[in-house]
Amino acid sequence: MSLFGNIPALLKPPSDLRFTVGAVLFYDHDVLDLNGPLHFFGGSGQFEIKTIAETKEPVANCGGTHTLVTHTFDEDTEFDFLFIPGAGPRGLLDLSQNERVVAYVKKVAPRMKFIFSVCTGALPLALAGVLDGHKATTNKMMFEFVAKRGTNVHWQPKARWVHDGNIITASGVSAGMDAALHILEHLNGKEYAQMRADVAEYEWHSDPSFDPFAEKAGLV
Amino acid sequence: MSLFGNIPALLKPPSDLRFTVGAVLFYDHDVLDLNGPLHFFGGSGQFEIKTIAETKEPVANCGGTHTLVTHTFDEDTEFDFLFIPGAGPRGLLDLSQNERVVAYVKKVAPRMKFIFSVCTGALPLALAGVLDGHKATTNKMMFEFVAKRGTNVHWQPKARWVHDGNIITASGVSAGMDAALHILEHLNGKEYAQMRADVAEYEWHSDPSFDPFAEKAGLV
Repeated sequence: MSLFGNIPALLKPPSDLRFTVGAVLFYDHDVLDLNGPLHFFGGSGQFEIKTIAETKEPVANCGGTHTLVTHTFDEDTEFDFLFIPGAGPRGLLDLSQNERVVAYVKKVAPRMKFIFSVCTGALPLALAGVLDGHKATTNKMMFEFVAKRGTNVHWQPKARWVHDGNIITASGVSAGMDAALHILEHLNGKEYAQMRADVAEYEWHSDPSFDPFAEKAGLV
Repeated sequence: MSLFGNIPALLKPPSDLRFTVGAVLFYDHDVLDLNGPLHFFGGSGQFEIKTIAETKEPVANCGGTHTLVTHTFDEDTEFDFLFIPGAGPRGLLDLSQNERVVAYVKKVAPRMKFIFSVCTGALPLALAGVLDGHKATTNKMMFEFVAKRGTNVHWQPKARWVHDGNIITASGVSAGMDAALHILEHLNGKEYAQMRADVAEYEWHSDPSFDPFAEKAGLV
């Protein structure tokens, strides 16, 4: 079976739902946290992507490149799906003290249809109070660092991702891909999400309770 | 166990080997092909990244964003590790006819210490003759399309990745992450590569013969 030529038609989602994603960027954001999900959101026309940061200067990321910024925190940017990747090894402390990111998240969160964080992207959500009263998870190797900054959150130490209300929080880095596929399943059904995983030759962990890393991190 | 604070020291590679990666970009390149490996190459100082394309205009990718270009094909850019991601669903036909990419690959390949392609990134390598006489692989869903454009290549229909001489070709999209970890293992040992996978909460397929997608594509 060769899919060449059929792929654009194959990727067409069953659902008519369309979203505009606002991806919040900051120093040393993780390129896989960001682009793993964007791979699965892309190619179908279901998601338009805007990248939003403090200024329009390209932002250094953990992969050794810079990411383009299309909109700034000062602008009144239209989107309905908030997406926050985590920080790389050099950016986490800065992110934990980044009041501009937290203020922006607090401002836009109430009007979102979906809120999605990957890895330590849950940190600004916690600091903004967005996760208060909700179940959520984050990177297992940084769990305590993040969890103690969101004391009203029902943190889940063993979860590949958590979907609570309109908020999806993924565990560390590569868990973002599994959670992105879960979002595609939620919107378009299991068959569509599994097809997207197969075309990417990705072994999707479709069970949110899959989490060998909780044990590796000594959390369970 | 919380690793916060220890991560930059932990990521320091055992090997003193350092590389400058030239990542070749073109219309609709795949963001996960590119950024999965860059996640694992990043953060340690072992790899410096340059992004190279026909012009310095940011290049549209399959994830719905644009990727920054730091160098052009016309420039005499110093690097010793050639990295070619594959094309997204709308870019593969264009890539198969892109003579500027093929000419650039042909020009720089002889002086590379490593040549690494992910997914249909093997296509310009094949068209440039770089894979002639070598074992190689590519995306299983596009296998025939790519393979018939490199008739002197020993194409491997069942392989997560192939490492032949200084050339590593990965299968589709997410296989790039497994191959990138293999490169880290090759340079720094198994323990270092496994640690990088664990920190990213990534289930590394460290066996290159792992390939359920060859069967799904009807190749074996």
